[in-house]
Amino acid sequence: MPKTIKKVGVLTSGGDSPGMNAAIRSVVRTCAYHNIECIGIYRGYQGMIEGDFKEMGPRSVNNIVNKGGTILKSARSVEFRTPEGRKKAHENLVKAGVDALVVIGGDGSFTGGLIFNSEFDFPVMGIPGTIDNDIYGTSFTLGYDTALNTVVDCIDKIRDTASSHNRLFFVEVMGRDAGHIALNAGIGAGAEEILIPEEDLGLDRLLDSLQKSKASGKSSSIVVIAEGDKIGKNVFELKDYVEANLPEYDVRVSVLGHMQRGGSPSCFDRVLASRLGVKAVESLLEGKSNYMVGLREDKVILTPLEQAIKGKSEIDRELLRVSDIMST
Amino acid sequence: MPKTIKKVGVLTSGGDSPGMNAAIRSVVRTCAYHNIECIGIYRGYQGMIEGDFKEMGPRSVNNIVNKGGTILKSARSVEFRTPEGRKKAHENLVKAGVDALVVIGGDGSFTGGLIFNSEFDFPVMGIPGTIDNDIYGTSFTLGYDTALNTVVDCIDKIRDTASSHNRLFFVEVMGRDAGHIALNAGIGAGAEEILIPEEDLGLDRLLDSLQKSKASGKSSSIVVIAEGDKIGKNVFELKDYVEANLPEYDVRVSVLGHMQRGGSPSCFDRVLASRLGVKAVESLLEGKSNYMVGLREDKVILTPLEQAIKGKSEIDRELLRVSDIMST
Amino acid sequence: MPKTIKKVGVLTSGGDSPGMNAAIRSVVRTCAYHNIECIGIYRGYQGMIEGDFKEMGPRSVNNIVNKGGTILKSARSVEFRTPEGRKKAHENLVKAGVDALVVIGGDGSFTGGLIFNSEFDFPVMGIPGTIDNDIYGTSFTLGYDTALNTVVDCIDKIRDTASSHNRLFFVEVMGRDAGHIALNAGIGAGAEEILIPEEDLGLDRLLDSLQKSKASGKSSSIVVIAEGDKIGKNVFELKDYVEANLPEYDVRVSVLGHMQRGGSPSCFDRVLASRLGVKAVESLLEGKSNYMVGLREDKVILTPLEQAIKGKSEIDRELLRVSDIMST
Amino acid sequence: MPKTIKKVGVLTSGGDSPGMNAAIRSVVRTCAYHNIECIGIYRGYQGMIEGDFKEMGPRSVNNIVNKGGTILKSARSVEFRTPEGRKKAHENLVKAGVDALVVIGGDGSFTGGLIFNSEFDFPVMGIPGTIDNDIYGTSFTLGYDTALNTVVDCIDKIRDTASSHNRLFFVEVMGRDAGHIALNAGIGAGAEEILIPEEDLGLDRLLDSLQKSKASGKSSSIVVIAEGDKIGKNVFELKDYVEANLPEYDVRVSVLGHMQRGGSPSCFDRVLASRLGVKAVESLLEGKSNYMVGLREDKVILTPLEQAIKGKSEIDRELLRVSDIMST
Repeated sequence: MPKTIKKVGVLTSGGDSPGMNAAIRSVVRTCAYHNIECIGIYRGYQGMIEGDFKEMGPRSVNNIVNKGGTILKSARSVEFRTPEGRKKAHENLVKAGVDALVVIGGDGSFTGGLIFNSEFDFPVMGIPGTIDNDIYGTSFTLGYDTALNTVVDCIDKIRDTASSHNRLFFVEVMGRDAGHIALNAGIGAGAEEILIPEEDLGLDRLLDSLQKSKASGKSSSIVVIAEGDKIGKNVFELKDYVEANLPEYDVRVSVLGHMQRGGSPSCFDRVLASRLGVKAVESLLEGKSNYMVGLREDKVILTPLEQAIKGKSEIDRELLRVSDIMST
Repeated sequence: MPKTIKKVGVLTSGGDSPGMNAAIRSVVRTCAYHNIECIGIYRGYQGMIEGDFKEMGPRSVNNIVNKGGTILKSARSVEFRTPEGRKKAHENLVKAGVDALVVIGGDGSFTGGLIFNSEFDFPVMGIPGTIDNDIYGTSFTLGYDTALNTVVDCIDKIRDTASSHNRLFFVEVMGRDAGHIALNAGIGAGAEEILIPEEDLGLDRLLDSLQKSKASGKSSSIVVIAEGDKIGKNVFELKDYVEANLPEYDVRVSVLGHMQRGGSPSCFDRVLASRLGVKAVESLLEGKSNYMVGLREDKVILTPLEQAIKGKSEIDRELLRVSDIMST
Repeated sequence: MPKTIKKVGVLTSGGDSPGMNAAIRSVVRTCAYHNIECIGIYRGYQGMIEGDFKEMGPRSVNNIVNKGGTILKSARSVEFRTPEGRKKAHENLVKAGVDALVVIGGDGSFTGGLIFNSEFDFPVMGIPGTIDNDIYGTSFTLGYDTALNTVVDCIDKIRDTASSHNRLFFVEVMGRDAGHIALNAGIGAGAEEILIPEEDLGLDRLLDSLQKSKASGKSSSIVVIAEGDKIGKNVFELKDYVEANLPEYDVRVSVLGHMQRGGSPSCFDRVLASRLGVKAVESLLEGKSNYMVGLREDKVILTPLEQAIKGKSEIDRELLRVSDIMST
Repeated sequence: MPKTIKKVGVLTSGGDSPGMNAAIRSVVRTCAYHNIECIGIYRGYQGMIEGDFKEMGPRSVNNIVNKGGTILKSARSVEFRTPEGRKKAHENLVKAGVDALVVIGGDGSFTGGLIFNSEFDFPVMGIPGTIDNDIYGTSFTLGYDTALNTVVDCIDKIRDTASSHNRLFFVEVMGRDAGHIALNAGIGAGAEEILIPEEDLGLDRLLDSLQKSKASGKSSSIVVIAEGDKIGKNVFELKDYVEANLPEYDVRVSVLGHMQRGGSPSCFDRVLASRLGVKAVESLLEGKSNYMVGLREDKVILTPLEQAIKGKSEIDRELLRVSDIMST
């Protein structure tokens, strides 16, 4: 029989993403709703080791649903990778009366949570927070939808200048080893071609596509490139390669960078964060542990953390076809 | 055996919504991809009656993926409700060599398409375009996600002034007879209370909730009210009622209005539009008719137009609970 | 010889506006830069009466430069209009060791400051914070530029739907008795006609202009109406009047409302706030009192508070002509 | 006596900037207002040489006031630098009946216009269109205000992630040889330090400032760096240098790039464009030539093109002090 949970700890870990604050708020208020206590743990697992805690009530999270970043801050913790570090962290939680943990982060953060659980039999629940959408068990990670909007807004601006000058732009976007951002934002931004890690089109195909585009009467083009693409050249080398092979093109490069991680979350991300926070806390109260909450097929579901870590979040191959048709 | 389709007509009808242009673009380019012709029909069914057509190739839809409104314009057509009107429309289509129709709009537009099909055995495919998300057979209509972002952006701004002055705001949002926008944007914007047509909380519950909110230490509050709510008072009467019963509150009203229908579509709506346009055209090419394309459980699916019209797009009742917990 | 100032109090009063937080930050950091103390006074003059103060150092104002509203909150104070109220306020300031006051607000707030100064010989400096731009002595008040951008963004969205449906929209904007917002945002948004308090065009001219617009081939139009316009009809009556006289028009009304007061300040407002805060504090340190800081002819200048209150911020009549030409 | 002008040509040249379309619209409509004709010249001087012209009436410029980029497109023209090229251009203008020219662009474009005038005694009027604000004779160039807002929006997003991770960010912004964007956007975004070409702080000062910032309790910082700064290291070398000297800092770099040139213009830029377009055309009609229109000290004025080209648009040194105080 699971012991009754009286106090939940919540932390954010790994790269921050828009919607993390909305998720923290949801965890805190769901605890209050069920009359249990909640503490915020600062700077992820490192703050757990240092006992950097703060009691949080429903008013502690006023006016953060719309804020980017994370009020609990995030950090990588080398020390948490050691048994000693985790022991210290556990002692701090016990001392503070914390019975269960909600970890908002990506697969690295979940791995930490899983090890922690296995060592101390401590209830852990994960909420997927990353812009990269590279987590198995959810169709949408927190911050992904916001990042897509940030990227299309940027490319819309770049398109203004591209079409005024009849230029070709290479735009590099985030996504780690996954092409979700590139593929979706590329379609959304009307990209001519999209390079993603999951699909190596090869350089010839790129040149071919650009030539056809010119021939079809397009005067300017945007190519969206995932940071993790496997084409074997970075975006600047790619520019040189294309200019060498297609001298009619004047290529400009834009690396969108860290702004993709920030900004006020979209409505979708705020609602998602609210739903996942409720589910995470209520699952803990039901005695569940070692799950990640997620949204799949329009429903909030649980996936074992282990699967969430090992599984691969596949891109939707239908979108490759859509992208291809859209660049007709 | 269905006759081969060589030319598709596309029109937008009813209230416009962000993403309609992206859907037009997708229809046009999917036709080009399959080497069939496409014509744009201006001002919905009225333009069909007047023969207001334009040939559209892939370059006709350059740089519209990010534009709000509809380049084909929209209009209500009284004449199309008469057999004579529809006859004229059919003659124009035949004269122009159009074999099949893609109708982008809401249930009224689909009803028109269904009647037209029944009279002339003319292939029709629907794409759900409305900000209200009130169509059965799809979890998301085109423009809905964008409207949610528009609404939360507005309420974020209103919250600045609400919390600077410790005030209560009543914000009326669109949605016709459905509470989707109110419920989701209300959660996204951190509303204290949300009034929707699907759930009549009653005036007592509202007063009660506002009193509890004050008691809990909240200094300002937002109440989001769907235009179709059933509480029996309009938003201005509601203000008077609350001020009469809770004199400690200074209530302000904001009716967001038509700006909710405009704006550059979100990435989600652009990708959705692209996917639905491909599916609509390819379904016609496969000989299908009288379906609406939609997105459900993460997949593009077909729903018979008749069901799409008669069915009801239910709100997700889990969200009512999430909203309740979030306003703790 | 003025006595040396060691501690400055800062408050925001009247309607809030974007940039107030940036101004608070500037006042606080300018004090720190000159090694004098600073306290924040909550809820304007009311907080002064209640002694609702907080010590503020440079780190108290981290990450607020981009936030709408005012962290010091604002309130109207009836009590401050009485000699007793002001006496209490003065005692609180003296008790807290405050030597001088920076008042961020509009002319009502400045009048309060001027009376306070005359009664207690207390140094007062004003910073014009209002979206209405209706203060003499500065070409730009804090929040005005942001409000203009908010208004044109909204009208851009409305235009999407207006031009999709060939409709006429009446959009009411803020500005109290001044037409600055209406005139500038109207030009920025490409309005067909602009109704402002400073210039009564009369109803005939409006009808005439709308008829000409239709004749010239415009299919949709936006009319921007200042809330303080003198045409003698409110915006809904105006709609009825126009529809009665020009039946070819289908008029929709949008009242933008309080969202105009919120939102993250524009760069212009943030820089302006930073400059005015520095000048306000440094002017106090130089022994000056009873001035408002402002920006005129590209320079930060001082205007006696009395003039700022009594003077009228005229609209630039060149803009009326520009508006007229632009709607050709 | 100047000959009567009956037809004005308008072109955009050099780098595009938000507001150029609003300026084109203003030129076109001011011509219509005065009953003279107007033609648009595509792709700047190159289109003049190729006779790439289009008649433009008031309806040709509907719905472009809010669009970034330039509908007339822009291009660099090598041929226009030759007497033969200019001769061909002149012949085309004469053949098309064009009497006068409005050039929207930067100093390079104005130089072209001045030479053209000197060779053919052809009336030329300049409108300053560049985001860099580096033109003498106007306090604001078209697009500058919009670019400032784009930059602060980006840095606001970056700050979310910087403050979540306690990181230092180096953000490179545009501006060619001028520090206007960096200085103003840096103040607006609350940058810790701003590096501009006009003021070489030196590397020691930068290290010193960052150390003080850490000591003062700031947990994250943004340094804004103008692309033309003279510190002798590019932004990536600067990162290495700082990390080598201040190992406690984990520096990230973001180069904002071309998105700074795009986007829907701010209200300020739209109004400015409208005013400058009116003045440009009306000055030509008054027989003036070889001037640039601009806004200085809140007034629309004329500056001889020669001065506009040779003069230097100085930064406001008061802002350096404000920046210094703000980073206290």
